[in-house]
Amino acid sequence: MNTVTDTRQRILESARDLIYARSYGEVGVAAICDSAGVKKGSFYHFFPSKRDLTLAVIDEFLVDFKERIFAEAFSKSLPPMQRFLRLAELAYRFQKEIAEETGHILGCPFGNIALEMSTQDEVLRQKVELIFSRMEDLFRETLTEAVAQGEIGEIDTGATASAMVAYAEGIMLMAKTRNDPEVLRTLMPVIADIRIPR
Amino acid sequence: MNTVTDTRQRILESARDLIYARSYGEVGVAAICDSAGVKKGSFYHFFPSKRDLTLAVIDEFLVDFKERIFAEAFSKSLPPMQRFLRLAELAYRFQKEIAEETGHILGCPFGNIALEMSTQDEVLRQKVELIFSRMEDLFRETLTEAVAQGEIGEIDTGATASAMVAYAEGIMLMAKTRNDPEVLRTLMPVIADIRIPR
Repeated sequence: MNTVTDTRQRILESARDLIYARSYGEVGVAAICDSAGVKKGSFYHFFPSKRDLTLAVIDEFLVDFKERIFAEAFSKSLPPMQRFLRLAELAYRFQKEIAEETGHILGCPFGNIALEMSTQDEVLRQKVELIFSRMEDLFRETLTEAVAQGEIGEIDTGATASAMVAYAEGIMLMAKTRNDPEVLRTLMPVIADIRIPR
Repeated sequence: MNTVTDTRQRILESARDLIYARSYGEVGVAAICDSAGVKKGSFYHFFPSKRDLTLAVIDEFLVDFKERIFAEAFSKSLPPMQRFLRLAELAYRFQKEIAEETGHILGCPFGNIALEMSTQDEVLRQKVELIFSRMEDLFRETLTEAVAQGEIGEIDTGATASAMVAYAEGIMLMAKTRNDPEVLRTLMPVIADIRIPR
């Protein structure tokens, strides 16, 4: 990795860690530069604004979650409905690990940004909306497989997928509010029981 | 209402409207004072800190929601499970009205504060946690009535109540992220179908 890439990556990782641990509003450019050990001029060379940096942070989380969680949970080697249970288990383990390190459940980084920023920044709102839509697509395709294989009966796969994504976000919110990973262990698996009839 | 009460109330209502429309971090004491038409000295006379004011704002929302939404939804005149459907309908109407006024779905004020502030302010986190616990109590008592009256079969009323509160928060989050009240209309009624077996 050359120096330019390295500086950009340090800014990105500092911002990711700080914003995830606190909030978008609480973390200023100065704090990010301090943490990354770079000057403000350098920051603005790589990211024209905090919003641009945040869009890159969201993409960074997305790549990380795809590799660490979604690739394993949505492996074709698992029966479709089992994939949701694996997702629940991996989400629990991931949050529990963070809580052990930091003392806090940090929740879903996309949900965090959505609730804090949706009324204030239309670009960030649309970015998170797109991520949730992609998640709904993945869930819907998985449910369609489950129906096709007879694992579950006929349902409204689109509405059920939307309800499942909302439920997952709600459980993340409750776990963060209670600061207790056990909320995820006991209640996230219920995601696989949600069914909306056609 | 005398002048002292009136000044306190103006600060409180300005803070409630501004924080709900934007976020905790985005709204400073100066903006609240500007909006309320009071001087900073006067602000600190009534509220030692922004956190104290926010605790009062949360109580203000609570009283308002109890009167406008929960009293009607959880009326004993309705069959227990119908109360959850009425809650869904009232939540939809409330958010739709706000969206028509402001252009934005503002979501659940408690969930908003929880996701933004839980890792940063332990007092605010515990305040919202308590509100969610009370909501779970109300849901659990309603489910217990439904079971006793034979409206639904035997379930784990405690776990189901927790899952229902989480689902409601998740739907609010999705509606805010999509900035679309129709998410509430189509998906919130599903709350009454959540069942966790004993």
